[in-house]
Order: sequence, then structure tokens, then C-alpha cells
Amino acid sequence: MTTEGLYGAVDLGGSHIGLALGFVDVDAGNYRLVARRNLEGGGYDGWEPMLDRIAEGLLELQREVGRRPAAVGVGCPGWVDLEAGVTRFLPNLPGQWRDVPVARLLGARLETPVRLLNDVRAATLGEFRFGAGRGVSTMALFALGTGIGGGVVIEGRLRLGPLGSAGELGHQIVDPTGPLCGCGNRGCLEAVASGPAIGGTGVRLLRSGQAPILQKIAGGDTEKVNAETMGEAARAGDEAVTKELERIAGLVGIAAANVVVTLHPELIVLGGGVAGLGDLLFDGVRQTIRERVRVFPTDDVRVEPAALGTDAGLAGVLAWAASGGGAGLDGDRNHG
Amino acid sequence: MTTEGLYGAVDLGGSHIGLALGFVDVDAGNYRLVARRNLEGGGYDGWEPMLDRIAEGLLELQREVGRRPAAVGVGCPGWVDLEAGVTRFLPNLPGQWRDVPVARLLGARLETPVRLLNDVRAATLGEFRFGAGRGVSTMALFALGTGIGGGVVIEGRLRLGPLGSAGELGHQIVDPTGPLCGCGNRGCLEAVASGPAIGGTGVRLLRSGQAPILQKIAGGDTEKVNAETMGEAARAGDEAVTKELERIAGLVGIAAANVVVTLHPELIVLGGGVAGLGDLLFDGVRQTIRERVRVFPTDDVRVEPAALGTDAGLAGVLAWAASGGGAGLDGDRNHG
Repeated sequence: MTTEGLYGAVDLGGSHIGLALGFVDVDAGNYRLVARRNLEGGGYDGWEPMLDRIAEGLLELQREVGRRPAAVGVGCPGWVDLEAGVTRFLPNLPGQWRDVPVARLLGARLETPVRLLNDVRAATLGEFRFGAGRGVSTMALFALGTGIGGGVVIEGRLRLGPLGSAGELGHQIVDPTGPLCGCGNRGCLEAVASGPAIGGTGVRLLRSGQAPILQKIAGGDTEKVNAETMGEAARAGDEAVTKELERIAGLVGIAAANVVVTLHPELIVLGGGVAGLGDLLFDGVRQTIRERVRVFPTDDVRVEPAALGTDAGLAGVLAWAASGGGAGLDGDRNHG
Repeated sequence: MTTEGLYGAVDLGGSHIGLALGFVDVDAGNYRLVARRNLEGGGYDGWEPMLDRIAEGLLELQREVGRRPAAVGVGCPGWVDLEAGVTRFLPNLPGQWRDVPVARLLGARLETPVRLLNDVRAATLGEFRFGAGRGVSTMALFALGTGIGGGVVIEGRLRLGPLGSAGELGHQIVDPTGPLCGCGNRGCLEAVASGPAIGGTGVRLLRSGQAPILQKIAGGDTEKVNAETMGEAARAGDEAVTKELERIAGLVGIAAANVVVTLHPELIVLGGGVAGLGDLLFDGVRQTIRERVRVFPTDDVRVEPAALGTDAGLAGVLAWAASGGGAGLDGDRNHG
């Protein structure tokens, strides 16, 4: 395993594109970004000019640092052919990037190997290598944001599955007759515990007149109702809001409990904006696991916040590039 | 990896104890039992006479075959310290076998290494090596019987977890406000889709007078209402029974769908007595996965019946013994 060196990272998103160069020491569990840039995510006329802009941005960073990265990892919001380095379906990007040979095209421009990975699997790998999961063998990550993504690492190995699709923990069914999810199914965790789902719950409370403190915080403006202001209202004593957040934390807890009985991991990591709810979320998840996983003892299962924040994805694709992920897909293990 | 040779197998259960000697060729995916015996599971005064009887039984088989097994695997209904070869908690056996050093005690009697494994994890390994999962890389097994156990194999490796407890797929929560489960939680798959849960549903239908064909098949005797007679009634056109079996298959499907989004396996294996429902179960599970997993395509996920029947556990501990499981726990992989 390559353990030290300069690598490149791209975090490809609909609202912004993060670029970075960084040194990585996978064995020591360290990375250090030495140059970075954010590009606009939108406003491109298809994937080609977007890829051009990414290549230019990385070449600019390379000139700043004065050195070419040994490899570049690209985190993609969707499904990618990991071995071929071709995007298959990135639903949240303009043009959906169907069958774009990113590894070949970008690799030719940068004159270095390029490796793709799903963005939330990348964040999982980042937290595993450098963040909350350092030193852990088996863990799962829930990325609780606008959507809910996830990832699992089993005995030191990121589980990828076909097109890197395994680890979609936000599409576990936690409420079989629950609300419609963006994916088309009903009652997915994402449909009840994503940022927009929590905001929607808050707006309903506001409109029903049951949440006086939330009403005050939002100044009656439904645009200001979100996980953050809901958390504020709950901490200030808004009972209806507190009750709803407890219910939602319990649903995240059910999804976490299902992962626990299936894999018995040492660690569940909660990241993304919704994890900013802090104890309001974590206490409920921990309690649900304790109360609902009765089939074996769970004293050894920790539930912890993500440590790397929004850098987890960049850190993860750096690790992915450094571990040779994509070349036979057997690069990223503890015990290579 | 030892690939050919004679191994011993013990399938330790509350109602009976299966003993066998067999030849195993893990690489070729073959095993062949050459001697076997069933002992009574009950009627022992604690674990010591039970272990004596097992040792005697295996020595008798050894004399029959005229050869000592290279190692013996023991499938245990509960939690075991895999490295130490000590049982921790086998709730369904008299005395619960707390902290019994089975590997040491039985190994001394048989003069051969003895390795322990949870019984349903053993069945999973059996199906993976020799049965429905031959040639597959990632699979999950649901053992749908009096209880619901399970197991997962990820990229050629049986997931064990602390005390071999990972893979308890029957304790996924499929109905958060559902009935109480034997484990103490509510709405586990086991509480709604085990043999007794299905029988209970049938008895309620019978008592309510809604299931005329089931009534006829059971002759009004609630003792005769079980998954088998329910299946018979449904196939003969009993609408209420059919509807309930569809509902139950849908709940198994939800548990399977959760495993699919988490691990994206190639194969889900359904075994145990309840799997005898055949299409009544399998169609519902397949349909639920197809309809409810929308986040990625699932055309590549098969749902198949177990192939080894009640021998899966014996086959699995044979494989476990042959692969050196327990010695560092790193023995059972495809790519050792």
C-alpha cells in the first residue's frame, strides 16, 4: 500500500465542487490538505465543460504546490463503474453524467491515474481512515443531510457492492406505511429524518400553532424552520418540537439498530447537518439501540459524531486514491 | 487452507443433537457425510452429561469410519467465544451452558482440535460453501423457523462479530409498533414471521371464522394450524389466509430489502420450515425488494431457497473445522 505522498481529491456535488491536493499517510491515519479550491456546482452546459473546469482547477492547484499528485480520487454523487472509472448515473448533476469515462478523460488531462468512488462511501472511508473511525474494524456511517446516505466498513474493508451502491442506509424502511421518499419507496429513513423531512415536520407544527418557541425563533417564517432552528426550539423548552425530534431520533435509532443486529459493528457514526442536533439526536439513537437490540449485548457498540465535517468526502477520496482503489478494488484494506 | 480430509460436525440443539463425520473439499465446494447419528437433545442433567454423550457418540462414529477427524466443528445455539472455544450463553439449552470450555473438554476427549460457531452462522457458511451460495461472493441467509436467525457473508467472508453474534437478521425491526418478540423488543421480523407467529395469525383467523378452507384442513383443531397448513389453505383458495401470508411475506421482504440497501448482496437465501411456503413466500419477498428498493437497480439480487435443508448446519461446521476457523478467526475466506 502506498502510504505517503501527494494525492488529489475532487468532491463532485450539485451545489459545489471541492478540489484539493493533500498528503496522505494511510498507515498513520493522517492526511493534510495543502491546497484547495471550491468551484460552483451549477451553471455548466453539460458534463464536458464541468470536467474541463475541474481539470483546470486541479492543474492550478498542482502549479501552486509545484508537484503532480500520484493519483486523484473523485467522489461522485451516485453510481460509478469503479473498475472502469466511468460514471453510470449521478441523478443530482446536470446531464446525470451517464457513462462518462471520467478516469480516462481526467487522467489524460492530469497525466495521473484517476479513481472514482461514490461520495458518501468516500466520506465513510474518510471517517474510517482519519476521523471518528480511526482504529476501528467494523463501522457504519449515516450521513444525515438533504438526503441520507451511508456506508459500511466491515473488518477493515469498505463494502462497495455493484457500482459502489452498497451502504445506502438512508433507504432502510423504518416506517413501512410512512411518507413517500424521493427514491419512490415509502417510509425510508430519508423520508422521515433528512433535513427537509425534519423541516417539514417543524412547518406542520408551526401551522398547527403547537410550537410557540419555534414560532418565536422562526418569527413565523416557515423558510426559517429547519433542523437547526428545531434544535434551538427544543433546547429552549418547546415541548411539541422536542417530542417530534425524539420521534425522529427514534427512527434513526431503528435504522441504526437494524445495522447493529446485521453487522454488530463497533461504531455507528452520525454525520451531516442533521447530526448538528447533538444530544437531541444522539441520546435517542443510543437509547433506541439499547432498548431495541435485545438479542445480544450492545455495550460494545458506540454511537459517535463524525469528526471531519464536510471534509470527510475529500479525505476519503484522498485515501481511495492513495490505496489504489479501483485497481482490482482490493486496495483498501487494513491487512493488505 | 486444508481442502480435503475427514472432519467432525456437531449440531447442538434443544430438541436434538446431530453428529456426523464427513469429507470436505472446500475449494471444490463439496462435502460428503460418511457417518451420522442423532442424539436426544433433552433429558440431560446439565451440560456435563450432554457433553459426555456427544464425545461418546463422536468416538463411536470414529470407530465406524476407522479414522480420527482432523478437526471437529460444533454449531451452538447462541453466543460463543470463538477464539477461546468457550460457550457464553446458549439460551435454548438446559443450564444455558454458561462459560463451558467445550473446545478444550471435547478436544481432550477426541484428541483433535474443536472449533465452535453459532449454529445459524454455521448454516449460512454451509449454504455458502456447498449449497445455494456456491460461487457467490456476498449473500445473506434468513433461517425462518421456530425463531428467525440469519447470517451474512461479505466478499467471501462470514461476518462473525463479537461472540459470533452478527447476522441476527430476524431481529431487524420491520414493524416498529408491532407485537412483542421473544427477545424483549417489539416488531422484530421474528415476532411476525416465525413459524409460531404465522401459526398464531392462522389461529386468530380460524377463531374469527374468516378462514373456511383452513378451518376444514385443520378440522377446527388449532394445534394443526401452522405455516404448512396455512400454505395448504392458501393454495386451495382461502382468501383470508392468502392475504395474511402475503402480508407476512411482505414483512420478510422488508427485512430482506434492508439487507439489500445495506450490503447489495448477490443472493438472499431463505431457509427453515417457513421457507416451505414456497412461492407464497418467495414471490412476496422478490416483489417487495423490487418495489421497495428504488435507490439502485436490484436486477442482480437473487432470492433463492436454501439447498441443504436441515444439513446446512452440519455442513457449515464441517467447513468451519476444515478452514481452521477459530485459529485467529481468519481461516474462512475465499482469498486466504
